Amino acid sequence: MTIPGGFVDVSGERFTAIYELHGDSEAEVRARAREVCVEETIEFPLDLVAAGDIRDHVVGRVESVRERAPRRWEVAISYAAEVAGAELTQLVNVVYGNVSLMPDVRLTRLELSPTLLAAYRGPRFGRRGLRELVAAVNRPLLATAVKPMGLSCRELAQLAYHFALGGIDVVKDDHGLADQPFAPFRERVERCVEAVARANQETGGRSIYMPNVTAGNLLARARLAKELGAGGLLVAPGLVGLDAVRRLADDDAIALPIISHPAFQGAFVTHPESGLSHYVLFGQLARLAGADATVYPNYGGRFSFSRDACRAIVAGTAVPMGGLRPSFPAPGGGMQLKRIPEMLLTYGRDVIFLIGGDLHRRGPDLVDNARFFRQLAEEM
Amino acid sequence: MTIPGGFVDVSGERFTAIYELHGDSEAEVRARAREVCVEETIEFPLDLVAAGDIRDHVVGRVESVRERAPRRWEVAISYAAEVAGAELTQLVNVVYGNVSLMPDVRLTRLELSPTLLAAYRGPRFGRRGLRELVAAVNRPLLATAVKPMGLSCRELAQLAYHFALGGIDVVKDDHGLADQPFAPFRERVERCVEAVARANQETGGRSIYMPNVTAGNLLARARLAKELGAGGLLVAPGLVGLDAVRRLADDDAIALPIISHPAFQGAFVTHPESGLSHYVLFGQLARLAGADATVYPNYGGRFSFSRDACRAIVAGTAVPMGGLRPSFPAPGGGMQLKRIPEMLLTYGRDVIFLIGGDLHRRGPDLVDNARFFRQLAEEM
Repeated sequence: MTIPGGFVDVSGERFTAIYELHGDSEAEVRARAREVCVEETIEFPLDLVAAGDIRDHVVGRVESVRERAPRRWEVAISYAAEVAGAELTQLVNVVYGNVSLMPDVRLTRLELSPTLLAAYRGPRFGRRGLRELVAAVNRPLLATAVKPMGLSCRELAQLAYHFALGGIDVVKDDHGLADQPFAPFRERVERCVEAVARANQETGGRSIYMPNVTAGNLLARARLAKELGAGGLLVAPGLVGLDAVRRLADDDAIALPIISHPAFQGAFVTHPESGLSHYVLFGQLARLAGADATVYPNYGGRFSFSRDACRAIVAGTAVPMGGLRPSFPAPGGGMQLKRIPEMLLTYGRDVIFLIGGDLHRRGPDLVDNARFFRQLAEEM
Repeated sequence: MTIPGGFVDVSGERFTAIYELHGDSEAEVRARAREVCVEETIEFPLDLVAAGDIRDHVVGRVESVRERAPRRWEVAISYAAEVAGAELTQLVNVVYGNVSLMPDVRLTRLELSPTLLAAYRGPRFGRRGLRELVAAVNRPLLATAVKPMGLSCRELAQLAYHFALGGIDVVKDDHGLADQPFAPFRERVERCVEAVARANQETGGRSIYMPNVTAGNLLARARLAKELGAGGLLVAPGLVGLDAVRRLADDDAIALPIISHPAFQGAFVTHPESGLSHYVLFGQLARLAGADATVYPNYGGRFSFSRDACRAIVAGTAVPMGGLRPSFPAPGGGMQLKRIPEMLLTYGRDVIFLIGGDLHRRGPDLVDNARFFRQLAEEM
């Protein structure tokens, strides 16, 4: 049976997703691109839909096909704004839902339309707001994590105290700290908040502690963290969903800066011919979800990201997207202090340097190690 | 500074994650496996942790390393039950959080421990419960979707009516139907519920309608669906997070069967050397989250899953996991009616056949097409 062509009231506003596809000829790639247009919208045989608004407006539209390198094509597909609406879950579904099941299509960039962008608040603080919070006008921000898992709340708080004394701006939970019996959430937050406040009082500094609220009851944990005086929140969108981060960021009663962590998101980016680009996942989407800073593994560390991928993330954190504030790139993942000078050349000052284990390796005095970290980062 | 070794009160209960790693020698693979053990738990240089409970109990432990094929090794790593606790977000984080950023480690299987499994209710209905709901004792279940996006609620409901008249057990929303202006959620559910109930009244059948509740406000939408009389819920864990599905499934006020949809999850499985196995993602994890049925693209359709991958999903839906009920495999994705006989040989009777577009292609009478579908599925 042929389906009616539909009478669909659309505004005409469209947004665009840019994909990388692979193929030998433009004709081949165009055919594949048209499959994507259908798959991501009506998911229905096009020949069974009568002429009308569904074919004309609801189905995605191939806007351009350009060969970028041998066999690598950049394909722009536009979708009606109404197909995504104001829901982040549905936006992600439209641009990369079923297509995720195709091993040769990569989503590389989003160009969202005005109405759609207006539905998103994005980072509440962004780069400028976070700088104000920690009183760092024009230098890279410093971050570290209290860890390892297995320490008691008291021991973790002692670490937080030393880090803050040494001038680390953001002292966050390791993302593996949840609500384990050896360091339960409430006690951990209470103690670490107190420790960082005490250090601030001694130094006149403005360090903030950010507990990890990644959990099923994300909002409840975030509210508790706020109540206990936390200065921000760490959350892994791969584990809780991007939209949950958005609700967290948009919650005016919580109103804390948010750092996103890449746990469980790696599989999206590690294969260059499929998945999502680093730019779109850690840059654009994290920002749409409202992350004020986006953690990712730095190039040359123990993970696989290239320098180009890291630069692309930086670009995604700052590309103009309506009124959305730029977010901070926060490279981490086995970073070493000795690499700070080189990283300053790569990243400039608009960056959060996240160093964990290596801050301990330098010597027995953690406060001194933290001061050294800060000194390195200010030498530009 | 060396970190104290910790005094960690652990029960000694451990659960196991099985990975596939790649390497030339056992020594090389063992070294890599030890990296995974650290990465997924303490994420901290092991040489900086003093001897004690953290090293002995909190860090993951390589239990076995076996060569399965040239360069392909099966590695079993155990973790203390307390490291994951009762949180699905943290369980996923432990078994595949940071490791997702490594392009050469694949999580293939979970062997969870009793306490951990006891924390999960799993599918509320499972295979038997879903069979009871639709009164299908011993035959494959049939499912289809109302679509395409762009039809009005009235038109979608008319489709639902015909499908139910023809004896399709599960009439679900297409996963792209959210709350778009052309078919708003509330009106769509109202009309489709009414249409399916009317068909049931005429046939004496027990078809159920399952709206798509994938959204940021998942629970609110599910509660509304329940209130309006929906017979089940469709949700995409890739978009809302596995734990959100779990909360939905565990909600005793909602208490509806749940079908999970693979949108945005494809990138996890499409590269054989990394990500997650089909078995663990669409089988074990979907079931832990409480999905009563798991939709995935059938082999030979327009996606890339192999027959072996599909068989592995089936195995994951039924492997003993404490008291968790088996879930239904629901192969779909461009399936054709003519393949039913062959699929019966592959899947047997414990399956939900999901056919969308091809149900329209057969001829102008949708009710007759649906009856034909049912007849095919009963011929075993």
